[in-house]
Amino acid sequence: MVNETGDFDFYPVEHSISCSSTDGKKVEIEWSDGHQSKFHFLWLRDNCPCCIHPETREPLFNVASIDEDQLIDSTSITEEGFLEVIWSKESHVSCFHPGWLRTNCFLDISNKSIPEAVTWDSNTKKKPNSFNWDEIISNPETEREWLFSLVEDGCCITKNVEPSKDGLIQITKRIGVVRETNFGLFFNVEAKTGPDTAAYTEIELPPHTDLPTREYQPGLQLLHCLKNSVKGGESILVDGFRVAEEIRSKEPETFNLLTTVPWDFGNRSTVTDYRWKAPMITLGIEGKIEEVRVGNFLRVPLQVDFELVEPMYKAYKLFETLNQEDRFKLNFRLEEGECLIFDNRRVLHARNSFDSSTGERHFCGCYIERDELWSAIRMLDRRNRQKIINSSSNE
Amino acid sequence: MVNETGDFDFYPVEHSISCSSTDGKKVEIEWSDGHQSKFHFLWLRDNCPCCIHPETREPLFNVASIDEDQLIDSTSITEEGFLEVIWSKESHVSCFHPGWLRTNCFLDISNKSIPEAVTWDSNTKKKPNSFNWDEIISNPETEREWLFSLVEDGCCITKNVEPSKDGLIQITKRIGVVRETNFGLFFNVEAKTGPDTAAYTEIELPPHTDLPTREYQPGLQLLHCLKNSVKGGESILVDGFRVAEEIRSKEPETFNLLTTVPWDFGNRSTVTDYRWKAPMITLGIEGKIEEVRVGNFLRVPLQVDFELVEPMYKAYKLFETLNQEDRFKLNFRLEEGECLIFDNRRVLHARNSFDSSTGERHFCGCYIERDELWSAIRMLDRRNRQKIINSSSNE
Repeated sequence: MVNETGDFDFYPVEHSISCSSTDGKKVEIEWSDGHQSKFHFLWLRDNCPCCIHPETREPLFNVASIDEDQLIDSTSITEEGFLEVIWSKESHVSCFHPGWLRTNCFLDISNKSIPEAVTWDSNTKKKPNSFNWDEIISNPETEREWLFSLVEDGCCITKNVEPSKDGLIQITKRIGVVRETNFGLFFNVEAKTGPDTAAYTEIELPPHTDLPTREYQPGLQLLHCLKNSVKGGESILVDGFRVAEEIRSKEPETFNLLTTVPWDFGNRSTVTDYRWKAPMITLGIEGKIEEVRVGNFLRVPLQVDFELVEPMYKAYKLFETLNQEDRFKLNFRLEEGECLIFDNRRVLHARNSFDSSTGERHFCGCYIERDELWSAIRMLDRRNRQKIINSSSNE
Repeated sequence: MVNETGDFDFYPVEHSISCSSTDGKKVEIEWSDGHQSKFHFLWLRDNCPCCIHPETREPLFNVASIDEDQLIDSTSITEEGFLEVIWSKESHVSCFHPGWLRTNCFLDISNKSIPEAVTWDSNTKKKPNSFNWDEIISNPETEREWLFSLVEDGCCITKNVEPSKDGLIQITKRIGVVRETNFGLFFNVEAKTGPDTAAYTEIELPPHTDLPTREYQPGLQLLHCLKNSVKGGESILVDGFRVAEEIRSKEPETFNLLTTVPWDFGNRSTVTDYRWKAPMITLGIEGKIEEVRVGNFLRVPLQVDFELVEPMYKAYKLFETLNQEDRFKLNFRLEEGECLIFDNRRVLHARNSFDSSTGERHFCGCYIERDELWSAIRMLDRRNRQKIINSSSNE
């Protein structure tokens, strides 16, 4: 059964529709709180809640069949407070739920379920926010703060997790599907014989993103500490967006090179050969910094016109030097049962070298795409809205 | 042990170095075939083959430590034909393998292991190229053609595969890691009770990409036919790049809207809420069409300024209408034991409705990222180069 709004979500009615009017091409609405909305007839036709598959709740209306002369004949408000739209050329009435309509009023869009990134450096932050696993799973408010930290800070630590792969699996189930790579579904970060990447040695790792060598860098990285008794091996995080912002403001030419000219990344083994060509900083719409791609040891020879070699190396040297400056670093030691999660496309991670003869160091890691995180946040919100509706219908 | 070129690849020497010279900042080389190369000292220092981890074969040299006054003192050609570079401020000699150097001469770059896309429509193509599974696994040349079809045409059919999930798994192992999603690691496309997406019903599916609702649309989609005895249910493919090219040439304003203004995609279920906001056509560097994102039934209400609603719906209507025109469609019936593979970010897929009462229709599907395919192609090339080297050393 389709609910009255057409989809799986819940839309508490905070404001009712006071009046509606139409000129055939648009509907104007005034709400009980004085807010005004304007909806185009094409948009309303496309989103008609009865033109939705009753089970999948996906749209069935085919935009290719849209009739641009199919204007609105009249509108009215039903007894239940719905907006009723009568079409000029179809014996069809579309009935819009007021809570749904207000949520989808673009002018009033409070669809801010996903927060914005807030960049940091070692002055503004000392350590990733940390949360107790028990509280996360028992208190939706803590769960929300935990997930929000991952979006806003791009990192957080989950404490008191069972120090085993199973402990890590429990965390992933709270967020979403694990992304497998050539390093496995879950990977063990420890000094190995015959390592196929620097992570599996004892050497220092400079700040980097994982898998800059792939078309899609993994979104979230989880590193769960099972054992950490060695001398050295401290964890370091750097907010790559913060560093990029500084380059943008202080060295605009360098920033321009880093955002426009692609570098050559690569990771090769005896059985795979992954490469990707991309600028080290990616800008989105309106110049927003969207992604950093960094990994000194994950590069293959730069292929670029001779004239660009020198300016590109100079730009990269500046970026790499800043990434390694203390003022950008969070420096901490991950303890047994702590799981570090960070946004791998924003926050660079590094580690100090360690000495295996002094103890054991074993992290278990995996990747999860960022949209799994965003889906998890929306589901928390949906459950909240459901509670509001349930409590009001019980009143 | 590091081989003499530093990495895992093989570099047959087709041309030897005739002479080299340096002005301190660059090295100029003339080859036995008359070709000339020019290498910058920063690039050479960064790529010094002895500054590579002996096991991971990843670079150890830290670009942040690069000394821009570290010029080249002199160069020479060794008895083995290597380029020897003596540095001015380091007691360090870098020795470059001639095959490696020629491969990495950007001016002569024949690093075209990955072919270009060649777009098609129903005039230039009737059906995806098809290949026998037995020949793919027994003949590297057929395997290469099979993988190339996926890059050039963005689709192919693999025939005579065991009509089971195991048959599909065998194919994935030939390409790379499977990408799991909320629909599972492998998904069964058949009419189900309580479907959570249109694919799991009997209804017609208009041309679409899978998961336009995700930040990263899956790269390759594999659909393996286990059973297909129903009336209807024919498969349809459309080259989305071809359609986009036509819009670009005939309706530049529409093209501009489709490439710049984001639409709202979404896929919701009782437990997940994935959404993504992106233009329907993505352009890369120099305006190259890089990705299409289409799914009429995978949209959520468009959030855009009122003034853009009408032009955007008109642009989308054109795109959707073209996608549904016969002249762009490959129309065929997938038979038992045939596995269709296509580039989900380029080639739209669709199906006619079918009637479950007339038989069975069961496809098993999964996703693989495109860079797994590219890695597989590079590995074929590497094995070829290895053969050349082995045969010449046996002479």
